[in-house]
Amino acid sequence: MKTLEGIVPELKIYKRHLFLNSLIYKSIFKIQSTILKASRDFLYDKGFIELVAPVIAPVTDPGIREAREIETRFYGEKAVLVTSAILYKLAGLKIHDKIFYVAPNIRIEPISISDFSTRLSEFRQIDIEAAYTDREGLISLSEEFLIYIIDKVKKERKEELDMLSRDIKIPKRPFRRIRFDDAVEIASEEGYGLDSSGELSKEAEKYISMIHNEPFWIIDYPAKIRGFYYKKIDSEHLLDMDLIYPEGFGEAASGGEREIDPLKVRDRMLETGVDPRRYIWLFELLYDGLPPCSGIGFGLERLTRYITGIRDIIDATLFPKAPGYLGL
Amino acid sequence: MKTLEGIVPELKIYKRHLFLNSLIYKSIFKIQSTILKASRDFLYDKGFIELVAPVIAPVTDPGIREAREIETRFYGEKAVLVTSAILYKLAGLKIHDKIFYVAPNIRIEPISISDFSTRLSEFRQIDIEAAYTDREGLISLSEEFLIYIIDKVKKERKEELDMLSRDIKIPKRPFRRIRFDDAVEIASEEGYGLDSSGELSKEAEKYISMIHNEPFWIIDYPAKIRGFYYKKIDSEHLLDMDLIYPEGFGEAASGGEREIDPLKVRDRMLETGVDPRRYIWLFELLYDGLPPCSGIGFGLERLTRYITGIRDIIDATLFPKAPGYLGL
Repeated sequence: MKTLEGIVPELKIYKRHLFLNSLIYKSIFKIQSTILKASRDFLYDKGFIELVAPVIAPVTDPGIREAREIETRFYGEKAVLVTSAILYKLAGLKIHDKIFYVAPNIRIEPISISDFSTRLSEFRQIDIEAAYTDREGLISLSEEFLIYIIDKVKKERKEELDMLSRDIKIPKRPFRRIRFDDAVEIASEEGYGLDSSGELSKEAEKYISMIHNEPFWIIDYPAKIRGFYYKKIDSEHLLDMDLIYPEGFGEAASGGEREIDPLKVRDRMLETGVDPRRYIWLFELLYDGLPPCSGIGFGLERLTRYITGIRDIIDATLFPKAPGYLGL
Repeated sequence: MKTLEGIVPELKIYKRHLFLNSLIYKSIFKIQSTILKASRDFLYDKGFIELVAPVIAPVTDPGIREAREIETRFYGEKAVLVTSAILYKLAGLKIHDKIFYVAPNIRIEPISISDFSTRLSEFRQIDIEAAYTDREGLISLSEEFLIYIIDKVKKERKEELDMLSRDIKIPKRPFRRIRFDDAVEIASEEGYGLDSSGELSKEAEKYISMIHNEPFWIIDYPAKIRGFYYKKIDSEHLLDMDLIYPEGFGEAASGGEREIDPLKVRDRMLETGVDPRRYIWLFELLYDGLPPCSGIGFGLERLTRYITGIRDIIDATLFPKAPGYLGL
């Protein structure tokens, strides 16, 4: 048996093709395939249909914390690679009330050469959007979704989970909910704080994740630090939520209820430092009329990492692009 | 009912979000969703698993006729957007003997301002690769695949097909096969010829498609004009094939048996004008050992166009990027 024990990350990124036939990668990617299949089966069963997200576009979602977008040229015109399909999910609701994408996201994250565990520069999101659904409804759907997937993997990929020595428990509903402000307090008791963007620092999030043994929600993030497309719950907080995996695995998914009033969206843009002139098409969409809706995006590789119990996110994608590492 | 009759393509590309709630787009994209689901159901049932293709990479497949790749920068390094996932499918066989991607492909096609019917600059391919399978096996699988999908759409999307006035027939197996050299002769009888790359011209392909009312294969393409990864059947022809839709809908899929001998791959590179130094990782993969294999890629939007019977390929993708048209 070929193991990956002691292989430096650089070799696993630049020579990945030579390691793919190890039993570890075979197990990881067979499980990932089952995760994809189970995700789709669950969503179709709930009345969702799959649409196809764009990769290249004139404009993308700016709500990506410290990350930047990749700019390129398209027949001489300035274009970007989509960092998040959120705005395109809103447009997708014109087709059907319940939609999802499995969308490629490409982001230039700050280079942190010592971290191959949690950040990828190219990844997929299982991106769900539902009309006439509030935060409560989406939280409920997401909990069912995660439980369904873990259950399927346990049933259909026992051999692969054993190979990876992973004994993952099926979470119990309802998951715990912690308000963001309370999460900050919990982290600060152990000396952890916020990062420069006002989010919980990586260490703080990891600490809170470590002290849990079931997935849990952090809700009501500060309005200033998160995407303009979320609705407010009060003047300073959003009707949003992150799902966090336990055992130190950290962030699973981000979502919330959408702001669909164009004037309020504009206020949210100004509040979060976004130029409304870049999003004329979104205003057109909103004036054309959108139903009240909520959405959430699950990182496929983070879900794979959690279910397989592996340490490094670079091992949850076939051809990894880590910050600063193009691969092959 | 909102129709799209008489709407200029520019408006449908740059203001697509304002037309998405027309009954026509609702029908098209619900059918596309069923195509995606049926494709996956069929392939899983045949023992395939889905893997995730890369979008950005240091190198991509050069076998894309007149099209070019989009170059960009990744943390200062030169990178490209993947134009075809073929080489990455070969690597995927290290995980499992039967794999598929639903892969985004981005290509800079020559600008042809009058054609919105057949060319997209961003599209998806249902990209299938099977070890220990020859051309014959893959032709058989592909025919079953297409029939399964059309049958599913007819059963589950009758209302949408009716809305589009599309009465599509389930093709009969086996599909007709025409050798490339014979196809050239058939086209030349009507005055159609080859394009500058040595392929059948667009008009020639359309003519041959028009005179058929069932899908058919063109096989044995000239070795000089097609990808270096195909095996030869004799000194001048390849063990490859294109699937062509009838009624003028044209190319459906391209595939063939793979050359897995590294020295012969190098010869094929030199024969097709490709620099072997760009593909060191592929040679490593081949020396590490690959099973004999065959693969094929079905364009999702072309399949959608054929099944829905619409004229323009830009109407088979949610956020179209036509050559020179970025959209929104």
